[in-house]
Amino acid sequence: MSTAGQVIRCRAAVAWEAGKPLVIEEVEVAPPQANEVRLKILYTSLCHSDVYFWEAKGQTPLFPRIYGHEAGGIVESVGEGVTDLAPGDHVLPVFTGECKECVHCKSEESNMCSLLRINTDRGVMLNDGKSRFSINGKPIYHFLGTSTFSEYTVVHVGCVAKINPLAPLEKVCVLSCGISTGLGATLNVAKPPKGSTVAVFGLGAVGLAAAEGARLSGASRIIGVDVNPKRFEEGKWSSPMKNFVFEHHCSYVLQWKLKTEMGFSLLVISTAKKFGCTEFVNPKDHNRPVQEVLAEMTDGGVDRSVECTGNVDAMISAFESVHDGWGVAVLVGVPHKDAVFKTHPMNLLNERTLKGTFFGNYKPRSDLPSLVEKYMNKELEVEKFITHQVSFSEINKAFDYMLKGEGLRCIIRMDG
Amino acid sequence: MSTAGQVIRCRAAVAWEAGKPLVIEEVEVAPPQANEVRLKILYTSLCHSDVYFWEAKGQTPLFPRIYGHEAGGIVESVGEGVTDLAPGDHVLPVFTGECKECVHCKSEESNMCSLLRINTDRGVMLNDGKSRFSINGKPIYHFLGTSTFSEYTVVHVGCVAKINPLAPLEKVCVLSCGISTGLGATLNVAKPPKGSTVAVFGLGAVGLAAAEGARLSGASRIIGVDVNPKRFEEGKWSSPMKNFVFEHHCSYVLQWKLKTEMGFSLLVISTAKKFGCTEFVNPKDHNRPVQEVLAEMTDGGVDRSVECTGNVDAMISAFESVHDGWGVAVLVGVPHKDAVFKTHPMNLLNERTLKGTFFGNYKPRSDLPSLVEKYMNKELEVEKFITHQVSFSEINKAFDYMLKGEGLRCIIRMDG
Ligand SMILES: NC(=O)c1ccc[n+]([C@@H]2O[C@H](COP(=O)([O-])OP(=O)(O)OC[C@H]3O[C@@H](n4cnc5c(N)ncnc54)[C@H](O)[C@@H]3O)[C@@H](O)[C@H]2O)c1
Ligand SMILES: NC(=O)c1ccc[n+]([C@@H]2O[C@H](COP(=O)([O-])OP(=O)(O)OC[C@H]3O[C@@H](n4cnc5c(N)ncnc54)[C@H](O)[C@@H]3O)[C@@H](O)[C@H]2O)c1
Ligand SMILES: [Zn+2]
Ligand SMILES: [Zn+2]
Ligand SMILES: [Zn+2]
Ligand SMILES: [Zn+2]
Repeated sequence: MSTAGQVIRCRAAVAWEAGKPLVIEEVEVAPPQANEVRLKILYTSLCHSDVYFWEAKGQTPLFPRIYGHEAGGIVESVGEGVTDLAPGDHVLPVFTGECKECVHCKSEESNMCSLLRINTDRGVMLNDGKSRFSINGKPIYHFLGTSTFSEYTVVHVGCVAKINPLAPLEKVCVLSCGISTGLGATLNVAKPPKGSTVAVFGLGAVGLAAAEGARLSGASRIIGVDVNPKRFEEGKWSSPMKNFVFEHHCSYVLQWKLKTEMGFSLLVISTAKKFGCTEFVNPKDHNRPVQEVLAEMTDGGVDRSVECTGNVDAMISAFESVHDGWGVAVLVGVPHKDAVFKTHPMNLLNERTLKGTFFGNYKPRSDLPSLVEKYMNKELEVEKFITHQVSFSEINKAFDYMLKGEGLRCIIRMDG
Repeated sequence: MSTAGQVIRCRAAVAWEAGKPLVIEEVEVAPPQANEVRLKILYTSLCHSDVYFWEAKGQTPLFPRIYGHEAGGIVESVGEGVTDLAPGDHVLPVFTGECKECVHCKSEESNMCSLLRINTDRGVMLNDGKSRFSINGKPIYHFLGTSTFSEYTVVHVGCVAKINPLAPLEKVCVLSCGISTGLGATLNVAKPPKGSTVAVFGLGAVGLAAAEGARLSGASRIIGVDVNPKRFEEGKWSSPMKNFVFEHHCSYVLQWKLKTEMGFSLLVISTAKKFGCTEFVNPKDHNRPVQEVLAEMTDGGVDRSVECTGNVDAMISAFESVHDGWGVAVLVGVPHKDAVFKTHPMNLLNERTLKGTFFGNYKPRSDLPSLVEKYMNKELEVEKFITHQVSFSEINKAFDYMLKGEGLRCIIRMDG
């Protein structure tokens, strides 16, 4: 029996208060209105931005709310006027949209749709300014227009990318936010020439995707910078055996550690090594600014840097790390709302370029389907970003992993 | 009789103290050493940077010193190892150089030669760390490696562009600094697409050259921003009749003023109009940030902005004036040494680009000769930048004009 046009009752993970564990509740999901679609979410994953807005430090808190924006699902029903999508289509919902009609959508350079660009303060749908979620008639706020921590959700048609139905949703769901963001930041914005040196600040999923983009671009040195040494050392996997694979880019330090401490000379592969990083710098290991350390390592500065931390000091360091004359720095991390980027203008006059990107400059509806095809053609690997899996009922575990800086992406299976 | 190898005694305008009128003195100019050439300067002009370092507010003062860096001259003699230049060559000395051997000179993007890039603190020649100027044996410091306020000067061969001997030096001398800087900032760095909207902050010679670059690029709107209304109103020429030429882009305000105050309806051409500016904004006429005024005039922001003021607040405004999604801001002005560029990182993440340029990204020896050719082929006008002429003995008048914000470039004839 079709559920189209009916209110659906299903499970959703509701955040009742800032920073408090989510609670699985039965919610009502209203049918989609004009230009909206209702999706059955099959897999969702946790991104740093969910945690950031759930902690609600420094932003307008909006509770109760259903978080979640990295996901894969199937169209359940469509609202009035929706012709691009039909029930059964496999889709990725996206936290930003593409109306295809505004100046941004018509510009070749921008993906910042005037109508559907990210709005972290809005907890309702555009059509009527109301929520489609409720519990006993009391509305629950949306998040980023996606709210994928629910078995069913309602999304604007402009925020939904229709993808190849053969693509495994439990894997390609990670392309709906972080991985595309990092990859695009390098491929579409930093554009490192072949043979160049790239520094990546922050080795979470976004940063490692940026490093992956540098590898695909043919960069010859990829320097990972993180304050969390777990991000580039072996001790981070739950099963120790996962570490031990053959790898020739492995640092001598790690090889030596293994030989001396564990008695054998298999090479270790750290997270970042798998993503092509050739060197690492932990700013905490130095008592001078990391930009000076990088300048020394590279005879004046890196050719490109990509910042994926959200920390404004790391943004400044990433910018000041690029070589004068030609260096380009790209900011990706979402900063604190009171953060101020500061630098001496001479750093710019010396012919450095500073840019920022949003969702890696990809247009969600136009570009995501072909990123999925790249995965299908084995040009792009997404498996290595997926380090954990939990069932929906254990969603708070995914928050714990991210808060502890463990692993990269945790896939949440909605059926469990 | 050849003067090669001899000390030459000639007139130079010596700055004995910060901010005090220059004094014409007889100086001794030593012969050029290895990789140096001695030039007979025929014409020089005054640039904002001369005034800035002569005022010595906020920098290490170095006195007595011979200023001047925009000039045209003829090679008098060459030092050991100089093969590119010979006595009699027509040249433009430049405040920055091109060794043709460092990473910057070999990079297609950079013009920031490691060996010969601008050094405002150095008052001596690279070869022996000594000055070639003296008065009664007491050394007088060089400025920017050029010191063109002297009938003869010694310059590193890498800082000298050999140009077409048919080019009139009294005109093309202005290409050796400000005009090329502004023109290149737009043509080589901002690169406005045809039909775009460009804002130019600061309508001195550099800014007007940037506006000229915008016109050559086919920009459809060029908005001049300056706090000095003389820069876009009629009252600035010494002879009032110079104002009254027919011009159809003239603003209604000016037409109205002429009709009501002067009783006739000839159209006025202001300085900036001659350079293709189509609109003007004086930040002082508004009680909100000029970036908001520009955003309103342009439905969200200009496509490109070029900052040519040296004021850090104008730099921030220029950046924040560009449209999100695709806007590019280019900084040209030389900031105060303690200036801090500050902006919210969100302005970058919204896909704006911030760049700086130095000498318009032109490589002095490789690119200046062809800019001179552009003038010879009438693709480029330089006459309109030249608003005053004085003889060398009246050099302090040129300083007065610049301090009062009168006119653009004042040519100083060395023979007078
Ligand atoms: N612009 C966009 O479209 C977009 C999209 C998705 C995510 N993001 C942002 O990208 C950033 C990264 O996301 P993620 O999911 O990879 O997060 P994450 O928390 O998994 O990774 C961030 C990494 O940065 C490191 N870090 C923090 N401060 C640092 C510093 N000062 N120097 C060096 N390293 C530092 C942390 O140790 C961590 O490893 C976040 O700010 C997120 O909000 C932006
Ligand atoms: N980067 C380089 O290679 C290079 C080369 C030459 C000159 N410059 C610099 O370019 C700048 C311009 O040089 P110029 O010779 O044209 O100087 P100028 O003094 O003739 O012109 C500067 C103009 O900026 C205006 N201005 C000042 N503050 C302003 C503000 N807050 N908002 C709007 N307008 C403002 C002034 O009224 C003036 O009209 C200077 O800083 C100079 O040092 C840089
Ligand atoms: Zn995300
Ligand atoms: Zn749009
Ligand atoms: Zn100058
Ligand atoms: Zn060089």
